[in-house]
Amino acid sequence: MAEQKEKVAEARTETKIEIKENERLDDLQISGLFIIQDTKRFCFGMDAVLLSGFVSIKDGARVLDMGTGTGILPLLLSAKTKASKLTGLEIQTESADMARRSVEYNRAVLQDRVEIVEGDIKEAGEIFGSASFDAVTCNPPYMKKGNGLVNPDEALAIARHELKCTFDDVARESAKVLVPGGRLFLVHKPERLSELLCTLTKYKLEPKRVRVVYPYADKEPEMVLIEAVKGGKSGMKLEKPLIIFEKNGEYTGEIKMDYRF
Amino acid sequence: MAEQKEKVAEARTETKIEIKENERLDDLQISGLFIIQDTKRFCFGMDAVLLSGFVSIKDGARVLDMGTGTGILPLLLSAKTKASKLTGLEIQTESADMARRSVEYNRAVLQDRVEIVEGDIKEAGEIFGSASFDAVTCNPPYMKKGNGLVNPDEALAIARHELKCTFDDVARESAKVLVPGGRLFLVHKPERLSELLCTLTKYKLEPKRVRVVYPYADKEPEMVLIEAVKGGKSGMKLEKPLIIFEKNGEYTGEIKMDYRF
Repeated sequence: MAEQKEKVAEARTETKIEIKENERLDDLQISGLFIIQDTKRFCFGMDAVLLSGFVSIKDGARVLDMGTGTGILPLLLSAKTKASKLTGLEIQTESADMARRSVEYNRAVLQDRVEIVEGDIKEAGEIFGSASFDAVTCNPPYMKKGNGLVNPDEALAIARHELKCTFDDVARESAKVLVPGGRLFLVHKPERLSELLCTLTKYKLEPKRVRVVYPYADKEPEMVLIEAVKGGKSGMKLEKPLIIFEKNGEYTGEIKMDYRF
Repeated sequence: MAEQKEKVAEARTETKIEIKENERLDDLQISGLFIIQDTKRFCFGMDAVLLSGFVSIKDGARVLDMGTGTGILPLLLSAKTKASKLTGLEIQTESADMARRSVEYNRAVLQDRVEIVEGDIKEAGEIFGSASFDAVTCNPPYMKKGNGLVNPDEALAIARHELKCTFDDVARESAKVLVPGGRLFLVHKPERLSELLCTLTKYKLEPKRVRVVYPYADKEPEMVLIEAVKGGKSGMKLEKPLIIFEKNGEYTGEIKMDYRF
């Protein structure tokens, strides 16, 4: 284990990865992985981390992360699963570039398991071909176009608002790239739950598992985690609540144990 | 108040209401109301009580309870709301008869606010006419035909399994009898949440409010409470969790306060 760490450190010293102005290198605290993020752009949040814990992927699976940003989900899933290949699709050139540099920086750990593709979610079926993935993950923009204040910074706006794609696009393209029985995992906002479930159903992505994330046991939820199965039978499991904080403001046992916060 | 109680008691002594074999008269512990139930048939449970607390009805509203059984919901809502008229629709003759006798027994309290109609949910639109109610409540059979063990007792089987009507029937007929902007309130099983939301959406009953009922803060939910608005805009509120028991097995504060358990 110590030997492995040394090798990784050596490999990193040899690789010259550019860290640009405003960027920082964050330790993901798992399998020696690091991520490059731009403090002025979208940085990953708890939603991505919770999604990575909700995902259940078979060994050897091919996974597509739609709208991967700086690649947080493929990076976390490389450590948490035995997926054979994790592909991140990102439309923004700067984010895709950061994600690629993170992959390069972690190459000694990741080898060739993670790949970043610059492209549009709306064209995922065309880019990758149909039935090309066993699982899709997605932490999409939460806000509808025209709802809420759009961030004046374009990069942040695209990450938060449905400017480049809608949830319908995500569901349609997921249905295209997934094999029959393939699984889509996503995190989204509770206020869109009904729309999400109906849109998934429309594309024959049957919602099979939903977990509601409550900040406290007596507060309204902030996120929903959803698993849908391509061509699955009707009938779903609504799981036990995921509660983030105890009354005293400390993380709950589950968050500490499963998510290493 | 004491005078009011005396009058009610007097009125009850004067009214001769038959209580048949196997039947019992239960005190609802609210506004001096009683209900007749048959110990060998379906007796109301916590789901009906929780639904009565989830419902929010405007003063003067006309309310239809679809599949009212022994009339528990109209009785509870007569005490909890200022609805002008509460109509219970029930297909089973014996249940409708018990409900009518309960209404009669409570006449001194209820006056003419509650009415029981024997009839089929599938024909509610025809029976009552379109746009005839401001709100609909429903605690429908939870189980699909063919799923789970069907009770050999027909009365119990009809209350629990979709033998006489499906959820599609409930949604379709609710959409017919509700005024524009009218509200449907229902309690159902979590495993059908996705199907429920999509079926409601299909009939332009937009899900606006969902509350998940968990027995304990760390257990899977047993019920979902849903409010849909006829012709409502997209976008819903997923409410704070409704947790029934504390870790030590006592009712939580909310259940004690709001539901008088």
